[in-house]
Amino acid sequence: MKARVFVTLKPSVFDPQGKTIADALHSLGYTGVADVRQGKFFEIDVEARTADQAFHVASEVADKVLANPVIESYRVEIPES
Amino acid sequence: MKARVFVTLKPSVFDPQGKTIADALHSLGYTGVADVRQGKFFEIDVEARTADQAFHVASEVADKVLANPVIESYRVEIPES
Repeated sequence: MKARVFVTLKPSVFDPQGKTIADALHSLGYTGVADVRQGKFFEIDVEARTADQAFHVASEVADKVLANPVIESYRVEIPES
Repeated sequence: MKARVFVTLKPSVFDPQGKTIADALHSLGYTGVADVRQGKFFEIDVEARTADQAFHVASEVADKVLANPVIESYRVEIPES
């Protein structure tokens, strides 16, 4: 079963990568872009019988390995298949 | 208006980062994790009047700047606010 994990910097944490992308877009003429935040995205293939079980495993993996809970927050999604 | 852009390597492209994460998870005891693919996730704040307009700007930005269309594919979402 596929699980999707989205990891983003917490809103209070400065995101230099996103700032650089926003500046680059401005210099390319995209003045309508106010702000960019960059995060990470993981697609995990979990062997699980139910969506609940897959969600549980993906959340544990996200919390322990994929995200740094001090500065990052994460969201887990199980897409309907 | 917020737009979300997801950039992932095309399925035919080898993802060494994802492979490393999967191996690390196996060695940590998560044997139920079959495969991991890593991608990028961007939250863009676009000045647009309609969702369609925001979608258009975000797609253009994704195609020209955020993704490398040769090896990556992208998906744009306008979350309901």
